[in-house]
Amino acid sequence: MSVFQVLLVAATHGNEINAPWLFDQWEANNDLIDVQDLQVSRVIGNPQALLEGQRYIDRDLNRSFKSDFLDSSDINDVEIVRARELVREYGPEGSNPSQLVIDFHSTTASMGACIVIYGRRPADLAIASLIQQNLEIPIYLHEGDSAQTGFLVESWPCGFVVEIGPVPQGVIHHQIIEKTLLLVENCLLEISNTIKRKACFPNKVEIHRHVQNIDYPRDCFGKPTSYIHKEIQGKDWKNISRNTPIFRNLKGDILRLDNYSNEDELVPVFVNEAAYAEKNIAMSLTKKEVWDFDPNWQESLYKILKTDNFV
Amino acid sequence: MSVFQVLLVAATHGNEINAPWLFDQWEANNDLIDVQDLQVSRVIGNPQALLEGQRYIDRDLNRSFKSDFLDSSDINDVEIVRARELVREYGPEGSNPSQLVIDFHSTTASMGACIVIYGRRPADLAIASLIQQNLEIPIYLHEGDSAQTGFLVESWPCGFVVEIGPVPQGVIHHQIIEKTLLLVENCLLEISNTIKRKACFPNKVEIHRHVQNIDYPRDCFGKPTSYIHKEIQGKDWKNISRNTPIFRNLKGDILRLDNYSNEDELVPVFVNEAAYAEKNIAMSLTKKEVWDFDPNWQESLYKILKTDNFV
Repeated sequence: MSVFQVLLVAATHGNEINAPWLFDQWEANNDLIDVQDLQVSRVIGNPQALLEGQRYIDRDLNRSFKSDFLDSSDINDVEIVRARELVREYGPEGSNPSQLVIDFHSTTASMGACIVIYGRRPADLAIASLIQQNLEIPIYLHEGDSAQTGFLVESWPCGFVVEIGPVPQGVIHHQIIEKTLLLVENCLLEISNTIKRKACFPNKVEIHRHVQNIDYPRDCFGKPTSYIHKEIQGKDWKNISRNTPIFRNLKGDILRLDNYSNEDELVPVFVNEAAYAEKNIAMSLTKKEVWDFDPNWQESLYKILKTDNFV
Repeated sequence: MSVFQVLLVAATHGNEINAPWLFDQWEANNDLIDVQDLQVSRVIGNPQALLEGQRYIDRDLNRSFKSDFLDSSDINDVEIVRARELVREYGPEGSNPSQLVIDFHSTTASMGACIVIYGRRPADLAIASLIQQNLEIPIYLHEGDSAQTGFLVESWPCGFVVEIGPVPQGVIHHQIIEKTLLLVENCLLEISNTIKRKACFPNKVEIHRHVQNIDYPRDCFGKPTSYIHKEIQGKDWKNISRNTPIFRNLKGDILRLDNYSNEDELVPVFVNEAAYAEKNIAMSLTKKEVWDFDPNWQESLYKILKTDNFV
């Protein structure tokens, strides 16, 4: 029976320092987390940015895994070089290969703990469903957003982001560490259960499907002219309706959801995330949906986890 | 009757963006804040850092007002050049002079709104006492800390910092804006009342006197090996005793207050402020004291406000 290797990444953004702390804690105490029967590789995504306490040096590492960046050797931005390195070493065909990656992030938004998946890859949906069933946490399905591409996890056959907040950038907070630890343990447990064909997949999964991003209203110089209205600040994952105030501008005027959408009910996420202002995202709007669990997802996950080799 | 000029500074740190927002809001609506009968100059402390969304470019502007920096023209760091400019223009003998400055900051620590004064300048104590009496907010007396000098307000005859949190760096939050506005209004009101000799000074003032800073325990490379214990995270202004846990290290061991101090009771402030890790400050410890209001403070403030010219 061969051993399945899981790749855990921390500090893909150098100012999100709780997951790297947990890695250090784990290094100091090997028994901190039960890795089940798995081989676990822990890697710091952007060590240079972590050292500098910045999100990135030249560009966002978590938008740098685009095939034209990875395939070319022309661009030598710190993060593109690093993306190539990570794929070369830990990618599915790397020198120390993994088929499954979990990328640990934190946010200034009041998101609690959640899972982010990119597109509708069946294996991602399968593993996310298992974790949601255990921990009752939301799944944010990011899709159809052509301005945001090149995410790290997309370079692995299966992978997802764990996003935990709220915490300021550059701050270690006991609650964020504890939640990160809980997620690591649970993810490893469910992967191990799946490999042993002992995972109990749910019948339904609750998805928060990405619908659109909303930017801060800005003046002709690009400077925001509104801030997040108090009715929606900190209200990630809460239903909002057409009449819900979204922004308050310099004059005190209010913009409401119906200025942006014809939907009757949506759910905001990443509300006021500090790092997204430069990406022209004040929040993302999602639609909460309950999907039937598709047996093909499970088969796809089995295939990637090569469970035939293990059972 | 001549007009007294008050200097208000925002974004002395470029990633503390709520006070600059309030300035923009005020610019868009002149009636937003009642300036009483005062002349108010609003200035952005570090415009270049604000544009970059960073605390500073070359060094902390709010540690750059040291006489050897201000008097020399050898050092041309962005912030030292800016400190000289600010004093030359708005200083007590500047081209557009003020005798009183208020410097608006925000913090990632759970400080609420408070006033910080530097040393025991009588006029600062007088005006801070008035504001405390009105708003029931704490006064942090920073003194005896030779590693932290060169604060902006020290270049004016009277001046103090307004510090408001918690808010992540680079995030505008409605509560922080509202509290900043309340403080601006109240400060101007009390200055105006004092000039008109209508201020009603209290008999007592409650001071949180700086006792010491505590750094994160670190390894030989300077990397923190402990985080703020959950018993003290977010507990700014709350009494702690010798047995209170302060840090938890990588192995799970706990350091308590009595590892740092022989005092029976102290009060932490700036707990886990993101920007202070690089200054080797995990928190500051203060002693809460109630002082009798000294009539000399009032006289000193009257003198600086030149109330004889106004009454």
